[in-house]
Amino acid sequence: MKDRAQAYFWDLRDRICAAFEAQDTATFERTNWSREGGGGGEMSIMRGSVFEKVGVNVSAVEGVFSDEFRERIPGTDESGAFFACGVSLVAHMKNPKVPAVHMNLRRIETGVGWFGGGTDLTPFFPFDEDVEQFHGCLKTACDRHAVADYAHYKKWCDEYFYLPHRQEPRGVGGIFFDNLDSGDVEADFAFVKEVGEAFIDTYPQIVARRKDTPYTDEDRKHQLVRRGRYVEFNLLYDRGTHFGLKTGGNVEAILMSLPPEVHWP
Amino acid sequence: MKDRAQAYFWDLRDRICAAFEAQDTATFERTNWSREGGGGGEMSIMRGSVFEKVGVNVSAVEGVFSDEFRERIPGTDESGAFFACGVSLVAHMKNPKVPAVHMNLRRIETGVGWFGGGTDLTPFFPFDEDVEQFHGCLKTACDRHAVADYAHYKKWCDEYFYLPHRQEPRGVGGIFFDNLDSGDVEADFAFVKEVGEAFIDTYPQIVARRKDTPYTDEDRKHQLVRRGRYVEFNLLYDRGTHFGLKTGGNVEAILMSLPPEVHWP
Repeated sequence: MKDRAQAYFWDLRDRICAAFEAQDTATFERTNWSREGGGGGEMSIMRGSVFEKVGVNVSAVEGVFSDEFRERIPGTDESGAFFACGVSLVAHMKNPKVPAVHMNLRRIETGVGWFGGGTDLTPFFPFDEDVEQFHGCLKTACDRHAVADYAHYKKWCDEYFYLPHRQEPRGVGGIFFDNLDSGDVEADFAFVKEVGEAFIDTYPQIVARRKDTPYTDEDRKHQLVRRGRYVEFNLLYDRGTHFGLKTGGNVEAILMSLPPEVHWP
Repeated sequence: MKDRAQAYFWDLRDRICAAFEAQDTATFERTNWSREGGGGGEMSIMRGSVFEKVGVNVSAVEGVFSDEFRERIPGTDESGAFFACGVSLVAHMKNPKVPAVHMNLRRIETGVGWFGGGTDLTPFFPFDEDVEQFHGCLKTACDRHAVADYAHYKKWCDEYFYLPHRQEPRGVGGIFFDNLDSGDVEADFAFVKEVGEAFIDTYPQIVARRKDTPYTDEDRKHQLVRRGRYVEFNLLYDRGTHFGLKTGGNVEAILMSLPPEVHWP
């Protein structure tokens, strides 16, 4: 499953980059990195006129968890050894009427193995049509797979992407799941792939629909301030960010999620 | 000592605001806030042409530490009750040739009482004269007081304001001290006041010297990117930020330290 998951994540990355490039005048730049201790990854970043900054990262790393992590992670009673691979993206859009988005899918193996992932949408000016389409496609994806529970994953997303100090959600949510290990790894993998396909079917449509929407300087200012919430969430709370920084992940890849321009007025 | 420390911090705040206003065309705006559970504070913020954004906060709060905090804090064996007051400032300057600065002085009382604080300078284009003056004035302040240990406090600052994920210091340092409780509270307080006076004697001189230095668009871009490190430090590592957010402090006051404009290119 390591190899098959990795192959899917890499292929999805290629198709996502192609779909995003089709809507912009720029192209992705790719940079490889390798990790001391085993494995590495590839960052793809595009700075365009539609996608102000979008990073799509893939990585596959092996290592041994520190004791601090180990006690919180399944399957590490006998050994702290782990394998983790995944695809992760965050898109910050030039036009404030186009929502920002995050998507991540990952496979982790210790003494046991599981999938995790999710995607959430952060509109600065929410259009019902976009929000409904996004939630709808994720519901459909979950409903097709007995191993997935849409209501649970939607709630998990709302709870995860929440800023307690602001008492604000990060955006309008989506789905979030972790430790997916139903006992039928083929069924789990099929669902994970469905989420990837749902994302690539849907987010580019939202971008196409909104990218030429007129906006004012005030709209742009609002977007730049709201992006501050994205930074606050990722640096104060995001487990993936902390996990990456503490396990010697690639700093540039991990912090590629941060917006290109932010205001805290 | 609660009242005397508070009176000094409030007075220092007034004098710092006046010294900063003297170098700018803008004035500070003040906003009071009160804390559920006891106490409150006052934010002073100026957005000027020299000081792009500077926040000077004073607060005096009382409460009861959560169990999570309590086990790490002295004097809480019998009760989690605490009193904390202090003054805290961060200045982000328009001209990238003028260093950013942070200063904080605080008095905490639980079953025991202590002072903490420090100040550190973050130049984007370090001038030897500024850096030497800053360190020199802090050395002089420490050397005048038997309760203070300059070498220790300087090292503590370098260790504290360090970004492990970047393997970079935040700036050029300064001093940092905590749990100052020598047994002679008058001597401790005299030192804390000396730090306040050293700050107000020195930083405005650095601003005056550099504020009209010519700079290029490239210099400004460099400053905006380096400001990202300031955000990363404060949100990922700063104990004061985490302490404030977790103890129900005022979010606007705590996050006033974040720069007005930041780039993660």
